[in-house]
Amino acid sequence: MRAVVYRGPGKVEVQDVPVPRPLGPRDAVVRVTRAAVCGTDLHPYRGELPGFPAGTVLGHEFAGRVHEAGPEVPFAVGERVFASDVIACGRCSDCLRGRHYQCGAGSLFGYADVAGPSVDGGQAQYVRVPFADVVLAHTPDSVTDEQALFVGDVLTTAYAGVRAARCEPGDVLGVVGAGPVGVLAARCGALAGAAEVVVAEPDARRREQAAEFGVRAVAPADFAAALRAATGGRGADAVIEAVGSDTALACALDATGPCGTVVALGAHHSTAMPFPTGQAFARELSVRFTVGNPIALRDRVLGVIRAGVDPGGIVTHRLPLEAAAEAYRLFDRHRAFKVVLECAS
Amino acid sequence: MRAVVYRGPGKVEVQDVPVPRPLGPRDAVVRVTRAAVCGTDLHPYRGELPGFPAGTVLGHEFAGRVHEAGPEVPFAVGERVFASDVIACGRCSDCLRGRHYQCGAGSLFGYADVAGPSVDGGQAQYVRVPFADVVLAHTPDSVTDEQALFVGDVLTTAYAGVRAARCEPGDVLGVVGAGPVGVLAARCGALAGAAEVVVAEPDARRREQAAEFGVRAVAPADFAAALRAATGGRGADAVIEAVGSDTALACALDATGPCGTVVALGAHHSTAMPFPTGQAFARELSVRFTVGNPIALRDRVLGVIRAGVDPGGIVTHRLPLEAAAEAYRLFDRHRAFKVVLECAS
Amino acid sequence: MRAVVYRGPGKVEVQDVPVPRPLGPRDAVVRVTRAAVCGTDLHPYRGELPGFPAGTVLGHEFAGRVHEAGPEVPFAVGERVFASDVIACGRCSDCLRGRHYQCGAGSLFGYADVAGPSVDGGQAQYVRVPFADVVLAHTPDSVTDEQALFVGDVLTTAYAGVRAARCEPGDVLGVVGAGPVGVLAARCGALAGAAEVVVAEPDARRREQAAEFGVRAVAPADFAAALRAATGGRGADAVIEAVGSDTALACALDATGPCGTVVALGAHHSTAMPFPTGQAFARELSVRFTVGNPIALRDRVLGVIRAGVDPGGIVTHRLPLEAAAEAYRLFDRHRAFKVVLECAS
Amino acid sequence: MRAVVYRGPGKVEVQDVPVPRPLGPRDAVVRVTRAAVCGTDLHPYRGELPGFPAGTVLGHEFAGRVHEAGPEVPFAVGERVFASDVIACGRCSDCLRGRHYQCGAGSLFGYADVAGPSVDGGQAQYVRVPFADVVLAHTPDSVTDEQALFVGDVLTTAYAGVRAARCEPGDVLGVVGAGPVGVLAARCGALAGAAEVVVAEPDARRREQAAEFGVRAVAPADFAAALRAATGGRGADAVIEAVGSDTALACALDATGPCGTVVALGAHHSTAMPFPTGQAFARELSVRFTVGNPIALRDRVLGVIRAGVDPGGIVTHRLPLEAAAEAYRLFDRHRAFKVVLECAS
Repeated sequence: MRAVVYRGPGKVEVQDVPVPRPLGPRDAVVRVTRAAVCGTDLHPYRGELPGFPAGTVLGHEFAGRVHEAGPEVPFAVGERVFASDVIACGRCSDCLRGRHYQCGAGSLFGYADVAGPSVDGGQAQYVRVPFADVVLAHTPDSVTDEQALFVGDVLTTAYAGVRAARCEPGDVLGVVGAGPVGVLAARCGALAGAAEVVVAEPDARRREQAAEFGVRAVAPADFAAALRAATGGRGADAVIEAVGSDTALACALDATGPCGTVVALGAHHSTAMPFPTGQAFARELSVRFTVGNPIALRDRVLGVIRAGVDPGGIVTHRLPLEAAAEAYRLFDRHRAFKVVLECAS
Repeated sequence: MRAVVYRGPGKVEVQDVPVPRPLGPRDAVVRVTRAAVCGTDLHPYRGELPGFPAGTVLGHEFAGRVHEAGPEVPFAVGERVFASDVIACGRCSDCLRGRHYQCGAGSLFGYADVAGPSVDGGQAQYVRVPFADVVLAHTPDSVTDEQALFVGDVLTTAYAGVRAARCEPGDVLGVVGAGPVGVLAARCGALAGAAEVVVAEPDARRREQAAEFGVRAVAPADFAAALRAATGGRGADAVIEAVGSDTALACALDATGPCGTVVALGAHHSTAMPFPTGQAFARELSVRFTVGNPIALRDRVLGVIRAGVDPGGIVTHRLPLEAAAEAYRLFDRHRAFKVVLECAS
Repeated sequence: MRAVVYRGPGKVEVQDVPVPRPLGPRDAVVRVTRAAVCGTDLHPYRGELPGFPAGTVLGHEFAGRVHEAGPEVPFAVGERVFASDVIACGRCSDCLRGRHYQCGAGSLFGYADVAGPSVDGGQAQYVRVPFADVVLAHTPDSVTDEQALFVGDVLTTAYAGVRAARCEPGDVLGVVGAGPVGVLAARCGALAGAAEVVVAEPDARRREQAAEFGVRAVAPADFAAALRAATGGRGADAVIEAVGSDTALACALDATGPCGTVVALGAHHSTAMPFPTGQAFARELSVRFTVGNPIALRDRVLGVIRAGVDPGGIVTHRLPLEAAAEAYRLFDRHRAFKVVLECAS
Repeated sequence: MRAVVYRGPGKVEVQDVPVPRPLGPRDAVVRVTRAAVCGTDLHPYRGELPGFPAGTVLGHEFAGRVHEAGPEVPFAVGERVFASDVIACGRCSDCLRGRHYQCGAGSLFGYADVAGPSVDGGQAQYVRVPFADVVLAHTPDSVTDEQALFVGDVLTTAYAGVRAARCEPGDVLGVVGAGPVGVLAARCGALAGAAEVVVAEPDARRREQAAEFGVRAVAPADFAAALRAATGGRGADAVIEAVGSDTALACALDATGPCGTVVALGAHHSTAMPFPTGQAFARELSVRFTVGNPIALRDRVLGVIRAGVDPGGIVTHRLPLEAAAEAYRLFDRHRAFKVVLECAS
């Protein structure tokens, strides 16, 4: 079969690799119809994860049909399914408390051994899914495969941010970063009844693109002022940080009003982000580091699609699987906002 | 001044009564610009409250301008304000916990001594407001007096129902009763991201009117089925009962799915409603009797207006104060959906 | 093997039945060391469930060691385990939301087909456990088998009541019913910091027994007054109803103060309990029908034991399995408070 | 009258100053019976607040009797009362949402203009209390003046930490700092049902003192290991930081387990605390900066006393008002754990 294989920094290739088989009774193999490139995939692509092994099949956002299923997999061959990016056993104490990202047996598709044991990814014609009874979910008839793959990561992450922000109707919400997660977080905030949503984004082209998606984006330097203007000087009720850098988190803290919440949704890696504790104390802020959890939230997120947030609306490029190298290039350079790979019909 | 005075069942008259004066340092007198007739006003009008004294000035939904203010009232003469229907001291332990309806010194405007000491109502040119530092709030420039008076009762009640229902994006919500509270609850549910809202209403004319307001209403006999169809057979995530009868509450319970919430928003008076505890146990339901609390929620409800729910949209009749008798007649017979009395410009 | 078999109203016998075997890869067979008789077992015993089939092996509170395990069961043969009374698949949308009692494939041990497909119970030397990867849990070294079996039902039910009551330190809590669930709910309420807990119980002997367990019990006629005296006249912050009758629920509602919560923890079966909606509205009460869920809560409940609530403290009789008929008789007649059957060492 | 007056770093004196009078209708003057020295008072004493004006009457923890009352103060002359350390208007939008510390008109007793307009403190024979209808509360008969003054600050702060930590029965809780707030937070955590509480404290004498108060304290270097040992390696469910330094917050973050909560209860002033965002993201932590709010919480905290946490138990020194200089010296040097000044009988 054909699969997107990491060859080293800046280099991905579509190669022939063996079709995977179930390794245990809870494994399934999915014939992938649609996969997407996620911002997280850019970390190895940009060489930010030294030692990331060449040969890894990439990708953790995908949907398709069950091709082969172990005896403990409650889906029929041919059934439409989508995967959670987070792999988890569903049995341990963390999983039973809904904390699947903390599962000791957990991992991430296509991410080598960075977040658990290496499991090949879904930017491929076929993908093996461990714990498929937990990791896969049925795709409803009303949802396309392209929409479904977003439930497996980026839409759920965005929605998890809005939930963690405890966003209520009438709130004024800020979002830092107008990438796919940020734009979808803004859309989910509006769905949840926010009176106003403002996004901070340094890239002027992305700000324009956000406007096309119906989202108001401003330069980071104007962010706090815009939120204060929208709140009689108080600052945002909540800010969702969707970037994963010290600067982005500082920007979020600065714009949040008294007793407000900052949700850090981006993947953070700092050991010493310079944090303004004095300000956070004076304003009684809460900061919540949150990972989207498709296993726990996918039912709700399917409801979010039904209620009107179509994640397909942010797809700017649909390319054949064979064009994956081009897809990574476009996405890395902000020439594409979100790329979907068509792996099969 | 002129005021709407209760003369007995089915009989209200606009009469001359003395202009009120502040009785203490926390009292204000408001020059009313707009007042509305509420479903609650129909209880005495329909003779459902035996002993309700003739001579009572009616009305608890009103907005206007400060006319006279005691020294402890933090509003300037001439300032635009609206009132909470619930009067509360703001000092006691209940008030400090946000339970203003339980305040021992509390009452309701224009409702004689039914819910506390008698305080004349606001369907008049002027009205005295006790505990005005707590009961009144500033009307923002962006909000009309007509909109503001809804924040003092019916929109807040509707929104309190959605909050108590813990409605989340993607939920399927039921509402029992397509009167003003029910229709606004449906609108607030949609604002909060409900994927679908269905209202039960026996009156065909009201169902049509609901449709004009953008709300889907069905006959009560079709209610549970409609909600099951919308939820793959489960039943609603939550149902808001906005009528206040045994039948309405039973209808709500019947249509609610596993682990769902029923919010009883209507004013209930039964001592022995036949309650299906077996069903409630099997489905692990919660039932929450909830009174809207404008003092605690008005800030949020102003945000709800800002986020797009215009309560003025349900006003079908705007009549001069002198036509109050006609207003009550139309409203009582379901010829008017919501009537606003123009008391002054 | 030997097992407690239902023969008809008032009649249980210890009989020889075949040792069960796993029927599928997620099944385990547990060698039972300790089982208990639960109030729920008395419903068939008292003939309250017409049609309950003779031949059913009873019992849903048990602990022991894994005797045989399907390939998908993550426990070793010989490992100490305890079961959840509720059987659930752990995979469906309800299970993933922590609503295991609503699982479509769910059931109850030893309860024939009353709550799902019939699964033989655990008052026996061996018991088959379906979905054992979900239904069983490891028994920590610090917990005895006798303690562990309580986590599978009655202690978890009690604790679920305290959680649903949102009991906070300093609260005044009422409990209706001084049976095992009621007494343990009172103990859990005290653990959670209640300033005072009062239990209503009509049986004078049970009130004395409650006092021996450190729990204050009064006659139902004195209940509301006792709670009002403890709250300056307001009524309880929350009341947990642990009986399952119309009378008990009415007693709970009557004693609950403004904005308080009633948790209906007993198994209710009424279609027309006479419910005082007027009172519930005036006081803005919440009523929550709640089933304990050991699968979701057992980790927390093991913590409750560790924090000091020893469920073994309420065991008044420990009898050999062969004396099960006597155990039922004593328990049914309130001669025993809680009976544990010693099935193996 | 006699009052404790700040004369400069390291120097407080008891001096004659005029007896205060009410300045407005909501003002009261309280005849102080008991006042305490708080850790916050040490900031000016240690010269950490440059420009803190000499002549300020210190102290924000006090209780006594109403001596004189404006017409809007709902307490009788002679009535026993205690004050909130936080002064707030009770009328503004922040106050109505229970965010009294954010009140625009708010301040702190005896703290010059550091946190709002200067209001003389309560380490004196008499003290003027602004917004006395909100700031004062009645002292119940069952509570001594000494206990009551703790509700006005340090016990409420401790309890607010436990609430913000969402501590549940069975949780394992960490506390950083074994001063009065830390020790009382540990006691409140135990009251709320924590299975184990461990406190980090560098001062060996304070660790011994904590042990005398029934609280287990370890050196900061052993803190994380002790909490991991108590949780099977996971780390604490929540940690309350009760110091207010970068080091203390880092210590709290390090010891908190997956999806845990850190409550920063100490007064923080840093602009660039080196924050480990990578760790916080990997563990999905929440950090909540929280100020105790006696106005909102005092009713609950009186319940905490009633439920068994006696704050008087941590008082090691009771000195006459005239010995205030000695009191500050002892407290500053950790020779006293908590000092109460006897201002009148």
